[in-house]
Amino acid sequence: MTISPLAPDAFPTLPEIDGVRFASGAAGVKYKNRKDVMLVEFTAGTSVAGVFTRSATRSAPVLDCQSKLGGSLSSTDRAAILVNSGNSNAFTGSAGEKSVAAICETVANATGIPKSRIFTASTGVIGERLPHDKITTKVADLAASLSPAGIEDAANAIMTTDTFAKGSSAEVLIEGKTVKITGIAKGSGMIAPDMATMLVYIFTDAKIEQPALQALLGALTDQTFNCITVDSDTSTSDSLMVAATGASGVDVTDSAGFTQALHGVMLDLAHQVVRDGEGATKFVEVKVTGAASDAEARRVGLSIANSPLVKTAIAGEDPNWGRIVMAVGKSGAQADRDRLSIKFGDVMVAENGWVSPNYSEAAGADHMKQQNILITVDLGIGGGMGTVWTCDLTHGYITINADYRS
Amino acid sequence: MTISPLAPDAFPTLPEIDGVRFASGAAGVKYKNRKDVMLVEFTAGTSVAGVFTRSATRSAPVLDCQSKLGGSLSSTDRAAILVNSGNSNAFTGSAGEKSVAAICETVANATGIPKSRIFTASTGVIGERLPHDKITTKVADLAASLSPAGIEDAANAIMTTDTFAKGSSAEVLIEGKTVKITGIAKGSGMIAPDMATMLVYIFTDAKIEQPALQALLGALTDQTFNCITVDSDTSTSDSLMVAATGASGVDVTDSAGFTQALHGVMLDLAHQVVRDGEGATKFVEVKVTGAASDAEARRVGLSIANSPLVKTAIAGEDPNWGRIVMAVGKSGAQADRDRLSIKFGDVMVAENGWVSPNYSEAAGADHMKQQNILITVDLGIGGGMGTVWTCDLTHGYITINADYRS
Repeated sequence: MTISPLAPDAFPTLPEIDGVRFASGAAGVKYKNRKDVMLVEFTAGTSVAGVFTRSATRSAPVLDCQSKLGGSLSSTDRAAILVNSGNSNAFTGSAGEKSVAAICETVANATGIPKSRIFTASTGVIGERLPHDKITTKVADLAASLSPAGIEDAANAIMTTDTFAKGSSAEVLIEGKTVKITGIAKGSGMIAPDMATMLVYIFTDAKIEQPALQALLGALTDQTFNCITVDSDTSTSDSLMVAATGASGVDVTDSAGFTQALHGVMLDLAHQVVRDGEGATKFVEVKVTGAASDAEARRVGLSIANSPLVKTAIAGEDPNWGRIVMAVGKSGAQADRDRLSIKFGDVMVAENGWVSPNYSEAAGADHMKQQNILITVDLGIGGGMGTVWTCDLTHGYITINADYRS
Repeated sequence: MTISPLAPDAFPTLPEIDGVRFASGAAGVKYKNRKDVMLVEFTAGTSVAGVFTRSATRSAPVLDCQSKLGGSLSSTDRAAILVNSGNSNAFTGSAGEKSVAAICETVANATGIPKSRIFTASTGVIGERLPHDKITTKVADLAASLSPAGIEDAANAIMTTDTFAKGSSAEVLIEGKTVKITGIAKGSGMIAPDMATMLVYIFTDAKIEQPALQALLGALTDQTFNCITVDSDTSTSDSLMVAATGASGVDVTDSAGFTQALHGVMLDLAHQVVRDGEGATKFVEVKVTGAASDAEARRVGLSIANSPLVKTAIAGEDPNWGRIVMAVGKSGAQADRDRLSIKFGDVMVAENGWVSPNYSEAAGADHMKQQNILITVDLGIGGGMGTVWTCDLTHGYITINADYRS
């Protein structure tokens, strides 16, 4: 597997979070000779929040997590997350639910954590029974090897078609004390259902009640992970969870500094997922302003970011602004040809219903040769704005997705 | 340009329609050494109906056609359509409107037809001024060479990236008399804005008032051209017009036979557009039944047909039914994992929330090797149904769209 040209130089050094311990191991669910299971354990009283795929055909682990988070999670108990790669346990009928129950039971027995506080996720091929015995036989070893230092191995264990492990962190000073946040993610396509689901786990020693953490997570997800797309396909397994151990003793409820730091970690991980988009050679930011509302701005941004013709033009380094006009037009958002303007980087391309009088194709082409592309669209209608991130659509995407199983 | 492997053997022999005359010529708008303009003239009293792209950034010719069709078109005058390829006259500001006016003026002068009955369309690159002088200098020659026999040349003149000219016809016996329908289309991608807009022109000697023809056209479009997709991108120039000369003397208002025949011609042309989809190697029918409503069935069908992961799996001849489950799940339509069933051709693949007990991967793979693929999805919820047609997503699509301008 060639590492994405858009990958960071190396996995970052992440601080340890007081109250969070990691273990990972090789269960051989599907992959040979690599780690494919991670177990994370949280100290007593940790607040756990989560957001999940909206797919109508979501996986058994997702349904189980949602039902557990639906109850009250302000608990004095410890908590745990177990994730496997290689099989998504999605569309596996009632056998899928039994696998989840068996894994939770085993983790509960090995750790003493109540089942209601044990969350799981699975990512990999769908429609095949999860061989959960391969996982449950490893749980005791995992529980025995938990360590605050194991986050990088955990990030590697949850990968499928990812070409690099994804991590991020932030530290923020609140009331004279340092609050730490770390996070890991997997994803390589906004989402492919059977090889490239997005999973994200974020850990912090901040103190915050579960309902407040859940509300914050929902709001920040809308500005980060819900603003990325690789191929417009939505997984049956997407899961994003945040665990706040409270070990720092710093209450971050309504803290602007904590919100900003958490947003930064989430956006960094979201960008890393795009940078590992299947076949990606360009990282693209689409900024929309002047829309009738923020929702309409995001609609236009996603219409541009999901357009195969826009994405192939970027792959070809072609400043084909006509395709941006097309994507604005088809979005369904309010737009007016004569008020629309389009920029590539700092280059004004189109305005007042036509190509800009000062635009030169050479200037547009220069921007398209960059690895990081910025497309700015102003609709000239109102004050709505939004930003979306995506990658280009290349021969590499076709090769990965048309050839891998046949 | 290699002809699509899904193309028909030859352009069909189309009957002449009484009251319709064609001319075509080489104006050199963009292409050299080929015909790029067609003129069609209709006898006095012809009913003309049309449906057009819903894009918010639609082209000047589309806006002009819509405004003319908005008025009463039950007229005793003759009518005409002029189409050029090579430049779409879209996103060309007020210059675009002036080009349309200049062309209509010239056609009016050369033919004596009132401007309110002259319709135009343009297809090709967007954002560049249409050099309409190249067209207007040819109009007198075109008007002088009108002939009932010129339909195949006309079908060729409107092509852009199409690899074959598209024609279809039907004859239907009503009250002992024969009514004829012919049609031509261009399109090679459900739509690319600057190289592959869909244009369709249908001609009949049936007698029908304009409002009834317009209503019929709208209803049949929903079952045909609105059920095809190549790449989910919507053109700024899509135009579909039907002209009924009345020369047969047969009133077809509310005639089931005529409706069926017109539906057949429209569906055949719609399928030919898919068969010429950019890079296509497979023709795919997606049939959805058991949905909560017909609209939900089409929503599921289009979610499957537009999914890059489904389309690449088909390109790879991979019976990857998990991706169908994913596309059903993300559609937003009501669905239930345990009631969903999926078939490839006659092969039951998934049912009761899991893979079918009798399914063999070899049987699924056999169907995927066919050139014509049938995917049937039953949602098991209600009586809604719908069918959508598409093609696969291949390296050919990337090559055409990422490489052609750079």
